[in-house]
Amino acid sequence: MFPRLKRLLLGSPLRTTELHEQKLSKKAALTVFASDNLSSTAYATEEILLVLVVAGPALLHAAVPIAGAIAVLLVIVVLSYGQLIRAYPAGGGAYAVAKENLGVGLGLVAAAALLIDYILTVAVSVAAGVAAIASAIPALHAYRPLLCFVAILILTVVNLRGVRESARAFAIPVYTFIFSIFVLIVVGLLREAPGPAVPGEASANLTQFSMMWLLLRGFAHGCVALTGVEAISNGVQAFRNPPVRNAQITMYLMAAILGAMFLGVSRLAYTFGITPHPEQTVVSQIARAVFGHDLSGSGLLYYLTQFSTTAILILAANTSYAGFPRLASILAQDRFVPRQFANLGDRLVFSNGIVILGAGSLALILIFRGDVHSLIPLYAIGVFLSFTLSQSGLVRYWWGSRGKGWPWRLGLNLLGAAATGVVLLVIAVVKFAEGAYIVVFAVPAVMLIFWKTRRHYFLLQTQLSLSDFEKPRVARHTVIVPVAPTPNKVVLTAIEYAKSISEDVIAVTVNVDGKKREELTQTWEKFVDDVQLIVLESPYRSVVRPLLRFIDEVEDLRSDDKLTVLLPEFVPARWWHNLLHNQTSLMLKGALLFRPGVVVTSVPHHLRE
Amino acid sequence: MFPRLKRLLLGSPLRTTELHEQKLSKKAALTVFASDNLSSTAYATEEILLVLVVAGPALLHAAVPIAGAIAVLLVIVVLSYGQLIRAYPAGGGAYAVAKENLGVGLGLVAAAALLIDYILTVAVSVAAGVAAIASAIPALHAYRPLLCFVAILILTVVNLRGVRESARAFAIPVYTFIFSIFVLIVVGLLREAPGPAVPGEASANLTQFSMMWLLLRGFAHGCVALTGVEAISNGVQAFRNPPVRNAQITMYLMAAILGAMFLGVSRLAYTFGITPHPEQTVVSQIARAVFGHDLSGSGLLYYLTQFSTTAILILAANTSYAGFPRLASILAQDRFVPRQFANLGDRLVFSNGIVILGAGSLALILIFRGDVHSLIPLYAIGVFLSFTLSQSGLVRYWWGSRGKGWPWRLGLNLLGAAATGVVLLVIAVVKFAEGAYIVVFAVPAVMLIFWKTRRHYFLLQTQLSLSDFEKPRVARHTVIVPVAPTPNKVVLTAIEYAKSISEDVIAVTVNVDGKKREELTQTWEKFVDDVQLIVLESPYRSVVRPLLRFIDEVEDLRSDDKLTVLLPEFVPARWWHNLLHNQTSLMLKGALLFRPGVVVTSVPHHLRE
Repeated sequence: MFPRLKRLLLGSPLRTTELHEQKLSKKAALTVFASDNLSSTAYATEEILLVLVVAGPALLHAAVPIAGAIAVLLVIVVLSYGQLIRAYPAGGGAYAVAKENLGVGLGLVAAAALLIDYILTVAVSVAAGVAAIASAIPALHAYRPLLCFVAILILTVVNLRGVRESARAFAIPVYTFIFSIFVLIVVGLLREAPGPAVPGEASANLTQFSMMWLLLRGFAHGCVALTGVEAISNGVQAFRNPPVRNAQITMYLMAAILGAMFLGVSRLAYTFGITPHPEQTVVSQIARAVFGHDLSGSGLLYYLTQFSTTAILILAANTSYAGFPRLASILAQDRFVPRQFANLGDRLVFSNGIVILGAGSLALILIFRGDVHSLIPLYAIGVFLSFTLSQSGLVRYWWGSRGKGWPWRLGLNLLGAAATGVVLLVIAVVKFAEGAYIVVFAVPAVMLIFWKTRRHYFLLQTQLSLSDFEKPRVARHTVIVPVAPTPNKVVLTAIEYAKSISEDVIAVTVNVDGKKREELTQTWEKFVDDVQLIVLESPYRSVVRPLLRFIDEVEDLRSDDKLTVLLPEFVPARWWHNLLHNQTSLMLKGALLFRPGVVVTSVPHHLRE
Repeated sequence: MFPRLKRLLLGSPLRTTELHEQKLSKKAALTVFASDNLSSTAYATEEILLVLVVAGPALLHAAVPIAGAIAVLLVIVVLSYGQLIRAYPAGGGAYAVAKENLGVGLGLVAAAALLIDYILTVAVSVAAGVAAIASAIPALHAYRPLLCFVAILILTVVNLRGVRESARAFAIPVYTFIFSIFVLIVVGLLREAPGPAVPGEASANLTQFSMMWLLLRGFAHGCVALTGVEAISNGVQAFRNPPVRNAQITMYLMAAILGAMFLGVSRLAYTFGITPHPEQTVVSQIARAVFGHDLSGSGLLYYLTQFSTTAILILAANTSYAGFPRLASILAQDRFVPRQFANLGDRLVFSNGIVILGAGSLALILIFRGDVHSLIPLYAIGVFLSFTLSQSGLVRYWWGSRGKGWPWRLGLNLLGAAATGVVLLVIAVVKFAEGAYIVVFAVPAVMLIFWKTRRHYFLLQTQLSLSDFEKPRVARHTVIVPVAPTPNKVVLTAIEYAKSISEDVIAVTVNVDGKKREELTQTWEKFVDDVQLIVLESPYRSVVRPLLRFIDEVEDLRSDDKLTVLLPEFVPARWWHNLLHNQTSLMLKGALLFRPGVVVTSVPHHLRE
């Protein structure tokens, strides 16, 4: 039943030899690596407006300069990452870079931040994607958590199948999205607008400090636009020759497209006097204002915008499905997470990482009921933490390498590290009370798991090492067979087996019903003449405790002995038959598990019906 | 942790030798056996009124004659049960009587009906008890399901401790209840009443048929008053000498008290023109009308009535806690239910029956949200089914015995069987759509479980019987030890053990990572020189499947062989360490469980940290 369902959903298992990497052109790479980054256009402007609207419509115009500041930050980060691609063409990632240059501790900080952020990316992207489609079709609004659930389920299953081959299919939604946003911006800017809200009025009601605070919060919230910038630097090896140059060009191109879209959308929001609405996204409002939403004529462009937004956001979540399992497998090789994360599943993907990512983001979606705005405050802090760490690592790298042009390269990364570091602080402070504190506590918690796990594997290795191994000296081998008072087939089969592995077999039974001892032994001797039956009295009717006490006594008496407890078991033909039997042997197994030195053997007897 | 909590809640285990029965005087027996029956006064009248009120207040006066008809039925049933006590002084119960006289099939019908009714009694009594206290303290109304939950939990724990010794404590609430209801009736009948609603008006609006149907439904609902009549007949052995006579007298006394209280309450409901109210019971309304409810003066009597009603209803539930486990243990001895129901627990009570009863009634309470009126339609049908079966059984019994005065004894039981049989049909038809259908389907379902269980134990006995047992002929003994590719302490300890039980040991490893076969065998031979390592290739990276295939092959090759799979296992020091390891040996054990003929041995290695 279950294996069949698994086969149906995931396809047949693949051979290890089928593992290979596929090289991508710049055009293809853009669609694979850029969806996470570009998709933030769908919500970044809205996040800024949501902060500013607190002060009334008057302050909304500030969104455009804030977007400008974020675009400047984008340029710094991208140039800084250009250096990372050159220094780590093997696809370093923040964990590798920080570990190598700043030490294992900071490397793990970056790893923890990244793992958390991958989970958040899935949750935020899926929630935003569902919000986009619910804006176009209002009837879906009430079903957002369910739609998120279905989307994550599909993403998980598709990734467990392995999506490598489908990279080409990604091109359509990504380019459709870029196309429709650019059409929106161009048409919107050309069209006569209803005129923006008059600025300057509400500002007077705010103290200068609250105004600054509000602008800073708007900036912090808008920084989600930068998420996903690092994706290309992790995948340099997937580019065609020359990989470094191609990757750099693709990244600069991605940043240019993102910058243009983000600034354009922010500007349009101002031009059309858009305010955030709980049931419709800002992009949807702009697109309705520009295109209308009748199904004939330009309204079709509105629906194209919304559907391609949903599509690219789901693809953005998919980027995490590539990143999380890969990072987890690297951490598993270093033994910082359970080593199962390094196992390749049936379809040659890191199945365990995929499942954990799906479960984690699903949990977030359910806790926050699929609402983008309550998830966003948790977001971006991890991204900027890993930005800062990887850029700082590069500063150390250039300092150590002193290669060609190292001073200006170092300077560039120093600027990047400083800028992202400052933004990180701003985000942490500004969003702390809104939920960022969760991440601030989650990163050390995840690191604790890393260390505990590492410690366990280390201690394990020490304890299993053969350096102090002595072959066990065996004097005698005693086999204890707990039996039912009346012999039956199961019991006798077990006794025969016991006799075949040792000459020292003791059958033991617990007298629960207060029967006469002689009666029991006489019945026993009728069937078994060469193995003695020990009858244990049990005044409190417990079966397990007297047996354990007896095993203790035998161990004490024969200290240089090997001790095997042999359990005659019958395996019923149907699962529910288990309900009809005392699970004594199960309980004994459980109790013996914690008793060193005792070997437990099950001699099963299979019932036919 | 868990054993300590258990000890705290349930007390220390008792020795089997402490098991003994305690003899009861008539006065004490009344409090132990009558609470179930007497407590129905608290809701029987209300159930009648709830039906009649459908036709408007005019028909409410019909409650008094209906109560009269039920009282007549009560007399017939009690006299009929007086014969049962004489015929089965050992405490037969409907199951024993029906099985002996009408055959196993009908005996099991009675048993199924009784088991279901015990569960319903707990649910109904607890729900009604909570309703009584919520009538006195309206603030509790919203918390009824929670209060029911707590009450059932306490009942279950108290009964797991064993309540035998506390029988004397039962006297206070039972006699307080009887006292307060009689005071209520006497004072109420003496006091000037506001005058009943004028009858005869609404009746005109009803067709004769609907009127008859309504009266019949009122009668069917009122029959819950008879529940618990049979309790004394099950416990004759607990009475002092002469038990039969004492039990009969106690039962007649109980019936007299019940009849007086039921008729009295029904009459008062009419006198004071009471109509059912969702948040206050009928008895509470009457008591408020008679006593007032200020906390000084006669209002105290109101609170006394309500609290003693709650107390006796909880005691009524307690009666089921005596009946259900005892019946289940008898059925377990006959192998119709899992034999664990016959096990005496630590405190010399049938713990499994108590737990199942608690869980079942809790489930009912939760499904019906602690509402008495939605539970009642399920109730009484089982009671009357067992009435009819046991009385019919007695008819056969007297026919067969032909003892002194058999014709009139037979006649009396025939009357009883006929009366309860007719009422059973009425109840089943009238309440069918309201929920009785659940019971109508549940009885055959429970009987199916009985037969399936019996069949399993029978087949088990046949399969385990030694009549065709042949000592297994052992030619060779092969031990297969699945090992990790690199030898460590766990592996070598297991290999040493394997060598001690057989000369034919095969170590086998699964090559998941695609390493060179020679490399693996060379490392192995460095540590183990006398056992060969077989390397299984696994192109699909599965560990369990290649091992199972290998075991199959070995079995095929050596058909006259005994085969042991020996699993080297390490037991981590902390439970969460299990998360850090592939559970390969667990999966192997699971897979081997369904493979006849293979013995599985665990050689554990305990980690220190």
